[in-house]
Amino acid sequence: MSKNVIIIGGGFAGISTAQKLASTDVDITIIDKTNHHLFQPLLYQVAAAALSPGDIAMPIRAIFSKQKNVEVVLGKVTGIDNEKSTVHLENGTTHSFDYLVLAPGAQYNYFGNEDWKKHAPGLKSISDALDIRERILFSLEKAEQIDDPEKRKPYLTYVIIGGGPTGVEMAGSIAEIAKRSMMQDFRNIKPDETKIYLIEAMDGILNAFEDPLSKKGQKTLEDMGVEVLLETPVKDIKKNGVEVEGRFIETPNIVWGAGVIASPLIKELEVETDRIGRAIVKPDLSIKGHSNIFVAGDAAHVKDESGDPLPGLAPVALQQGKFLGNLIKDDLKNKVRKEFEYVDKGTMATIGRAKAVADIRGFKFSGFFAWLLWGLIHIFFLIGFRNRFRVFAEWVWHYLTFKRGVRLIAKKDEDS
Amino acid sequence: MSKNVIIIGGGFAGISTAQKLASTDVDITIIDKTNHHLFQPLLYQVAAAALSPGDIAMPIRAIFSKQKNVEVVLGKVTGIDNEKSTVHLENGTTHSFDYLVLAPGAQYNYFGNEDWKKHAPGLKSISDALDIRERILFSLEKAEQIDDPEKRKPYLTYVIIGGGPTGVEMAGSIAEIAKRSMMQDFRNIKPDETKIYLIEAMDGILNAFEDPLSKKGQKTLEDMGVEVLLETPVKDIKKNGVEVEGRFIETPNIVWGAGVIASPLIKELEVETDRIGRAIVKPDLSIKGHSNIFVAGDAAHVKDESGDPLPGLAPVALQQGKFLGNLIKDDLKNKVRKEFEYVDKGTMATIGRAKAVADIRGFKFSGFFAWLLWGLIHIFFLIGFRNRFRVFAEWVWHYLTFKRGVRLIAKKDEDS
Repeated sequence: MSKNVIIIGGGFAGISTAQKLASTDVDITIIDKTNHHLFQPLLYQVAAAALSPGDIAMPIRAIFSKQKNVEVVLGKVTGIDNEKSTVHLENGTTHSFDYLVLAPGAQYNYFGNEDWKKHAPGLKSISDALDIRERILFSLEKAEQIDDPEKRKPYLTYVIIGGGPTGVEMAGSIAEIAKRSMMQDFRNIKPDETKIYLIEAMDGILNAFEDPLSKKGQKTLEDMGVEVLLETPVKDIKKNGVEVEGRFIETPNIVWGAGVIASPLIKELEVETDRIGRAIVKPDLSIKGHSNIFVAGDAAHVKDESGDPLPGLAPVALQQGKFLGNLIKDDLKNKVRKEFEYVDKGTMATIGRAKAVADIRGFKFSGFFAWLLWGLIHIFFLIGFRNRFRVFAEWVWHYLTFKRGVRLIAKKDEDS
Repeated sequence: MSKNVIIIGGGFAGISTAQKLASTDVDITIIDKTNHHLFQPLLYQVAAAALSPGDIAMPIRAIFSKQKNVEVVLGKVTGIDNEKSTVHLENGTTHSFDYLVLAPGAQYNYFGNEDWKKHAPGLKSISDALDIRERILFSLEKAEQIDDPEKRKPYLTYVIIGGGPTGVEMAGSIAEIAKRSMMQDFRNIKPDETKIYLIEAMDGILNAFEDPLSKKGQKTLEDMGVEVLLETPVKDIKKNGVEVEGRFIETPNIVWGAGVIASPLIKELEVETDRIGRAIVKPDLSIKGHSNIFVAGDAAHVKDESGDPLPGLAPVALQQGKFLGNLIKDDLKNKVRKEFEYVDKGTMATIGRAKAVADIRGFKFSGFFAWLLWGLIHIFFLIGFRNRFRVFAEWVWHYLTFKRGVRLIAKKDEDS
């Protein structure tokens, strides 16, 4: 009888595990609390009204429509029993497994200040992206109707917290929307009224990149009109603004990209975790004491050669997923398990319409060529030919015209 | 000093009025409670997960970005003062006009049963379409997890109320989603478990069309597996189903397309209205006693040559808008006003992937050719080259692959 493989999480790690097992005699169940796989690296473009949700998300069951050994369950996991090898869902059902791959991802960390969350949403789901998009669009509409430039200043002020790739990409996008793409559509507000802040607690942005890319990224942002505040931890966030040392920035437009913690689902496993809740796993990604339970992706603490944990990036999750698919195949043939080794193919972040920074195998690029490369790589990894074509077409349009694609305010609670 | 033209409503009538005045020396203010113009004839395709909201909606200020005499105000009108020639907004501001074009459209009529609305949403806004889309997608996911076919039957049952074009188009789309496009993605549920009802109180569907098209439309639906119940008024709607004479259809999937009334904003004008709240207007579309106040589109009761009111269709609204633009131009040159005459270029409704019915100037078409024609005409009228290209590409994809484009559940109140 075929072994049961349960995969919790339809992100990069979960999807690539299942895809690797396409021709293997196993019964795979993918459980996710949404019905879709989200291409998170492009989520900020939904928030910046450049792409539609449908461009970067694909229903999980559509991805596996032809892979008959995969069943997809829309549901929320409430418990995992290591001993009994079962998973419990919110709807009351229980699923048994021979192998469990737990890849639930990460979420934003507000350092204990949960009340900041409602004023400063993070960017982890389509919901989040649409929420941020609406706030940005509404802020422009609101400012347009206020005659006094002093009174409308807060609406044209934007604060992004966190100098990692997400924060940098959001800041660059908003600088474009506010300063270039959209201003011709408004009659009263002017691009130079916009004020964008990127706030970072450390002494540099894009810390995963080496100098000089980190400095180049900062300069590019500054040239686009973003004010980068380094060594500036956030002290408080209220509905009407952000407090840092020495000043209060008045704005309703606050985006949080400052730090992640692992999904709380990890607590359901009895496993040692690190400071941000990631499960400490062995070199084969299994947890101590249970060689049939694995954690992969952003929720796993996996050491690299220098003993540091691998970062929560898409290529890491993808490689781990493939590794686990192969490991399960080896297990079924009673082969010796390998150890996971991450192959760093490079890191990239885009900073705007045609600028990016990239570090590929030691070659450092920036500017237009990096942006092209970034674009092509992202399109390549997007799942689904249709999505690739649409995103490519959207970007070509955007590049040629500066026009932002999807500037739609369509709040669910609007009545007709 | 330039005359002020206020246009309330960014639908077909409002937009085409403003476009006609592009080179005229007037100051135009378009007020809408959403920020976008919606191509309503294709809204059912968003509900049926074939198109994204962004494909059929365009921000009003983007449409007029190059037309400098247009200002766009996002706001809700709360009052109109005929005597003082002013319009009041919810945000407290007041706007004066020399000419007022009131084109707020229509909404669904629940015949006094307002409690039906939450169980049976209508299809008038992007919000509505996304709500319906989610219900349909969730219903399939829910059914997939129920082993007992009897217990899952209600989730695979769909009731559409109203045999006009909207109801017919929705029924045809759901038949496709449920029976063909999506079933390969599910492992448990089967296409023949789906049951779709189109419920109509009159003795035929598509009553705006002449026989034999009305009968042909019904046959096409029935061939697609839709059960058409004629002369079947709805007696009650509950959360778990619809009651008609002699039976109760158990289902959470209910869509309302049964009747419209004019926007309640018409009550703010002191004007005579018809049975469904539409403003009775003179042949030049102005209201009695105020030659500078006009009503156009679905909210206007305009008589045709036989004395019957013109239907609430997009081509009617478009022609009225153009007429009003020209009328204002004539007024400014002190020319005599013309009377509005509708030129009926034909009516169409699509019933599925490649079938439609069309009545163009007395030539009656059906089937594949009608569908092609329908597609081309709709694309032509879509505003914005980008939207046209995207929708065209989406349809070609859909036709070639049967795959539905945007099957995304991304509810706003989902937490990450």
